[in-house]
Amino acid sequence: MAKEVTDRDDNYSQWYNDLVVKADLAEQSAVRGCMVIKPYGYAIWEKMQRVLDDMFKKTGVQNAYFPLFIPKSFFSREAEHVAGFAKECAEVTHHRLMNDPSGKGVVVDPSAKLEEELIVRPTSETIIWNTYKNWITSWRDLPILCNQWCNVVRWEMRTRLFLRTSEFLWQEGHPAHATAEEAQAKALEMVGVYADFARNTLALPVVVGHKSPNERFAGALDTMTIEAMMQDGKALQAGTSHFLGQNFAKSFEVQFTNNKGQQEYVWATSWGVSTRLMGALIMAHGDNNGLVLPPKLAPIQVVMVPIYKTPEERSAILEKMESVKKELEASGVSVKIDSRDTLRPGFKFAEWELKGVPVRMAIGPRDLAAGTVEVARRDTLSKELMSLEGIAPAVVKLLDEIQENIYNKALQFRDANVRKCDDWETFKTEIQKGGFLLCHWDGTAETEEKIKEETKATIRCIPMDSYVCEEEGKCIYSGKPSHRRVIFAISY
Amino acid sequence: MAKEVTDRDDNYSQWYNDLVVKADLAEQSAVRGCMVIKPYGYAIWEKMQRVLDDMFKKTGVQNAYFPLFIPKSFFSREAEHVAGFAKECAEVTHHRLMNDPSGKGVVVDPSAKLEEELIVRPTSETIIWNTYKNWITSWRDLPILCNQWCNVVRWEMRTRLFLRTSEFLWQEGHPAHATAEEAQAKALEMVGVYADFARNTLALPVVVGHKSPNERFAGALDTMTIEAMMQDGKALQAGTSHFLGQNFAKSFEVQFTNNKGQQEYVWATSWGVSTRLMGALIMAHGDNNGLVLPPKLAPIQVVMVPIYKTPEERSAILEKMESVKKELEASGVSVKIDSRDTLRPGFKFAEWELKGVPVRMAIGPRDLAAGTVEVARRDTLSKELMSLEGIAPAVVKLLDEIQENIYNKALQFRDANVRKCDDWETFKTEIQKGGFLLCHWDGTAETEEKIKEETKATIRCIPMDSYVCEEEGKCIYSGKPSHRRVIFAISY
Repeated sequence: MAKEVTDRDDNYSQWYNDLVVKADLAEQSAVRGCMVIKPYGYAIWEKMQRVLDDMFKKTGVQNAYFPLFIPKSFFSREAEHVAGFAKECAEVTHHRLMNDPSGKGVVVDPSAKLEEELIVRPTSETIIWNTYKNWITSWRDLPILCNQWCNVVRWEMRTRLFLRTSEFLWQEGHPAHATAEEAQAKALEMVGVYADFARNTLALPVVVGHKSPNERFAGALDTMTIEAMMQDGKALQAGTSHFLGQNFAKSFEVQFTNNKGQQEYVWATSWGVSTRLMGALIMAHGDNNGLVLPPKLAPIQVVMVPIYKTPEERSAILEKMESVKKELEASGVSVKIDSRDTLRPGFKFAEWELKGVPVRMAIGPRDLAAGTVEVARRDTLSKELMSLEGIAPAVVKLLDEIQENIYNKALQFRDANVRKCDDWETFKTEIQKGGFLLCHWDGTAETEEKIKEETKATIRCIPMDSYVCEEEGKCIYSGKPSHRRVIFAISY
Repeated sequence: MAKEVTDRDDNYSQWYNDLVVKADLAEQSAVRGCMVIKPYGYAIWEKMQRVLDDMFKKTGVQNAYFPLFIPKSFFSREAEHVAGFAKECAEVTHHRLMNDPSGKGVVVDPSAKLEEELIVRPTSETIIWNTYKNWITSWRDLPILCNQWCNVVRWEMRTRLFLRTSEFLWQEGHPAHATAEEAQAKALEMVGVYADFARNTLALPVVVGHKSPNERFAGALDTMTIEAMMQDGKALQAGTSHFLGQNFAKSFEVQFTNNKGQQEYVWATSWGVSTRLMGALIMAHGDNNGLVLPPKLAPIQVVMVPIYKTPEERSAILEKMESVKKELEASGVSVKIDSRDTLRPGFKFAEWELKGVPVRMAIGPRDLAAGTVEVARRDTLSKELMSLEGIAPAVVKLLDEIQENIYNKALQFRDANVRKCDDWETFKTEIQKGGFLLCHWDGTAETEEKIKEETKATIRCIPMDSYVCEEEGKCIYSGKPSHRRVIFAISY
């Protein structure tokens, strides 16, 4: 049989790791905390990139590329930013290796020490705003709507494939604006793009909201987030969009002449999503048979498995499959025929289930005679006999249904696991069961920290949609007055 | 007027730099040797990526991602490889910054020293072959056809935008094969893909050939190259494809069971092109007015400039332009309307010429009345009055003509600057004039090195196409027998 997957209910964490590794998405590399993204995993990431990139470009965003390295001194410029990032960076100190004078191998050449150490970017605000200084003089130069797709490094002590790795891939948008209003509108627009992408492509029913001040990005005045619920009830922050005010412009002296002829500092936003989305995808939809991929992100949308006994049957079925494949491909469906002749159909079924392929088609000699095909859905594991006549539009419709069903299933799960809580003792028990708790909070960092200390729960967001939270009440911890509920959860 | 460009004949090198910087393609960053690729430059690179990536995938190649960092010890494994790359690398030695105890700013935390230093990848053969070790056990696991698009770092003392930078972007393909024949065929196929791309997309009439042993990639048994001629007559290596034999498999112990049940080392190829192609594009086609972009790579294929005196004329012309734009876009043409009202048309013309936009359309009040448009070609700088009726197919045809003409112009230039040379004294003078010299060579590294010492010329390649070089003769330097001519040139 195919590779065994740990039961999700027995050991969620091991189940997740099994899916990543056994479905050939990614694996640990020889470098501590860095992963190898395997072709099947990378193909999903490429699909995410393509959809997101098209969405960005529709809003006027352009891609660019800024250096991997950041001079150390740049990190001292923005005080909060350095506190947030400086502690977990890779530092380049030398630029040459030499043969080890005492024998075999190579060593770092001590004479090739850099005058100023270079930091491998953990995020690029500093180098980008230092660059913008030379691009911006007048309001006519604004807005600048740059984004970059790149790798970043944050030294992590405890890593998990896709969810937390020392190196990861992401996009980081870094617009520069003439006014605070325009910047805020852009930050809002982009969290909206992320929510749209999460819901309609990833099939993730995310909640959009503001972060509490404690959970903001280092250097931001406002951080908006999309928060997703995983099947163990934990929250996963899937993307963030920040309003950075004039902090970076002030640190890097980026001023412009506004349309009244006055000098003013430029307004900034930044926003990003990363390969962490791969983790969200796996954990939100997978089951005990493996991945369940939404059709819009599946590298293979339909896999065909021939069922035969004789070589004649095999070739007749494969021939039929080739013609069905062409028909489907003409309708924009990606298809793979699994013609391997050393494996039994049952093994193949299990393997493609593990890999989350949305639709499986099996054709045997009887189907060939009758002009039928057995169509199995990965999301429901149900099977149905369909006519090969008009198969292409039927499959296109089925893929849409599967996409929708995966979303609805996740939405039902989320809604079943969101509950109001107004009592601190109840909170302490309930929060350990997983899910989102809608609670009143007095708005202070102090209370948030105490709650985190006692329960590990954090405020995931102050919802902007999905739940009506505006109501008077009392803080679940301090009992002080509160004007709205916020979402508490234990998170990844 | 628009930004001034240095005359190409006065100072080729400054002309090149002016084009890169003034056309907004790229600029130096705050980090020594690393560039910022600006949105207009990056849009061209994205087009290159898209075309190449589609071509790769048609040959069965899949993308993946391997770590940025390589453990230092990996560089000691493959002896030739370390000699070729170890001298110019960025080394990560620490993983944390801390506040400077003696005052402001941050310093590298000495307690966060890595046990083994990490090298920022200059190329990824070592880390990839170390990974393949776990992917390959049987001939059924082969071939593996992985490629990755990523950044690499090679510490360079003298850098030039796009041509030689410490960090650059590239793709590196790293197939693993069961037989030498299959690997060699793949290396040949991929240099063919590069040649096809260079000729048909970049409009570069490259020569395909083998590198001499001296010029091979560190660790390769054979390196094939595409060599392009720049307008100063120098050669530019635009892409390489290597047959690596079993060297990396032996260094990283990658064996498989072949179909006869025997253990065997895996055969390797690697092949890559980089942002250096941007340099080739600029230098091969640009003129004293700026860039000349082949339509297939131009982010904007058609720019429209309205010519008006009154606001009424302006709005009527812009309205017309919007409808023409829609028509052109429906035919797959990318269009920009330059509606800026603070700049004169002459300024705009010069700016879009500098940026190399293939076709410029100007519409004035008289055109509006007559249903005509003035169409200017960037490649020939010629203008023509065209009817707006049937404009879309006319423009599509024109863009094809321009693409072809740019190629033919470069081909004529190349052919005019390739000459046979059979006399050493003549060689020494001729080689300084630029161009490719087809000369006999005795096949020894010694002769090649002597020629390089005396003239700076190297063997660019032993041509596989473009020129018939198989003939008996005498080495231009040593006078020893030779069976074929090779291309000598001074190169970038």
